[in-house]
Amino acid sequence: MLELISEHACFGGSQRFYRHQSGATGLPMRFSVFIPAAADGARLPAMFYLAGLTCTEETFMIKAGAQRVAAQEGMILIAPDTSPRGAGIPGEADAWDFGLGAGFYVDATSAPWNSHYRMYSYILELRELLVAELPVDGARTGIFGHSMGGHGALVLALRNPDLFRSVSAFAPIAAPSRCPWGRRAFSGYLGGDENSWKRYDASALMELSHTPFPGGILIDQGLADKFLAEQLYPDVFEAACAKAGQPLELRRHEGYDHGYYFISTFIEEHLRFHRARLG
Amino acid sequence: MLELISEHACFGGSQRFYRHQSGATGLPMRFSVFIPAAADGARLPAMFYLAGLTCTEETFMIKAGAQRVAAQEGMILIAPDTSPRGAGIPGEADAWDFGLGAGFYVDATSAPWNSHYRMYSYILELRELLVAELPVDGARTGIFGHSMGGHGALVLALRNPDLFRSVSAFAPIAAPSRCPWGRRAFSGYLGGDENSWKRYDASALMELSHTPFPGGILIDQGLADKFLAEQLYPDVFEAACAKAGQPLELRRHEGYDHGYYFISTFIEEHLRFHRARLG
Repeated sequence: MLELISEHACFGGSQRFYRHQSGATGLPMRFSVFIPAAADGARLPAMFYLAGLTCTEETFMIKAGAQRVAAQEGMILIAPDTSPRGAGIPGEADAWDFGLGAGFYVDATSAPWNSHYRMYSYILELRELLVAELPVDGARTGIFGHSMGGHGALVLALRNPDLFRSVSAFAPIAAPSRCPWGRRAFSGYLGGDENSWKRYDASALMELSHTPFPGGILIDQGLADKFLAEQLYPDVFEAACAKAGQPLELRRHEGYDHGYYFISTFIEEHLRFHRARLG
Repeated sequence: MLELISEHACFGGSQRFYRHQSGATGLPMRFSVFIPAAADGARLPAMFYLAGLTCTEETFMIKAGAQRVAAQEGMILIAPDTSPRGAGIPGEADAWDFGLGAGFYVDATSAPWNSHYRMYSYILELRELLVAELPVDGARTGIFGHSMGGHGALVLALRNPDLFRSVSAFAPIAAPSRCPWGRRAFSGYLGGDENSWKRYDASALMELSHTPFPGGILIDQGLADKFLAEQLYPDVFEAACAKAGQPLELRRHEGYDHGYYFISTFIEEHLRFHRARLG
């Protein structure tokens, strides 16, 4: 059951914000959707966009400039929130890179986080729900994201290539087991056994991979990104792809940083990349 | 003297945030600029965008999606803040529609506001400064804005057609002397003599006008805008234009509201409108 919170006309289509009760997180969750005008009656390809640390379901829709291209291409855009809200876990609001706004798209196994912080399963739940409730073509859904959300998109696609038929990322946390953000999050949500982290680490997954992700992977990375050296490790993912025979287009952009001025510059190319693969 | 606060690569150009000491307001002011790559050496046409109530110099640059078109068209974008900050006037932060974030692009004449709230002169000062300090072609500057900023753009252009060679607006407060927002602001900043309000009221200015604004005026207005009936009065401005022989394209859009989903939908057409007139 979807509760419509607000709706705005946008590029001839409809920008909507919804709330619903999630089984995966056990809490009410918010997400946003852009549905182009072309949707009347037809099932459309749809893109899930996973946002980064501190973001919400609104960030992508106000900052990326994606609706214009989605309207042209006849694609639905879906942006979930970045964590459960209202779990009431002591300390969950204390840091900007763990807890609220920082769910890291994993299913927590350590208490107290395992009660509600189950964003991996939540994204799969949301996908199923929207295929049922909105004009989303279940055979044509792709996924992309930024930073923490780029990590989430890569992991969800690599583990579910039958559900997400195309994948790309902006400045993803590409080897989270190696970087401070990822190590803190995985320690907290998953516990100290680093073996259990691998299924949430795109580079580790790629090292274990036997079949390339169909259609290749597109990643854009700014070279003036202040998080590049310490947190992102695209070169580790690139090496893993090379070893696994995974086609990857990793584009390094002189001068671009980690923010939405970077994302908005390349969003059109990402959407056209996905549109070509989703058909 | 401009102090660069931050800079971000964006669509091949540069998105910048500056601070400078303003003579008009007597305070440090912030503004943002987008300079396309084409600027190397060449003087470019430039657009001043005046934002609405509660906005800052950042709002337009993160929400409107304008840089893509400006990069294509070789135009500079400039977005000032919406009021002085730091005047320290008691009560200036108490309301969202008066004081901070609500300068209304007038030069206040009533104490205590007249010491710093001089946004009309500030916009003219900023224009001169940027023609001197940035590759802005002083013969090719236009102005546009949203809501309170649409009001500001119309007033500044109608009173300074030699400085602003093109003008357009999104959902402007088109007859501020008649609406609650405008009456409150003008009473506070200008005092009770309503005659003194006329030079800051686009509809009143148009009624007094003897020569049409060159190139015509473009206004977009959403018909699902919740402020339309009580605050905006585009029909009053439209009637004044008809009487004055002023070419006006007032486009009424079914379903669109007052926000940036509306603005982003039509921003490209506004920028092309200005580009065609600025040459």
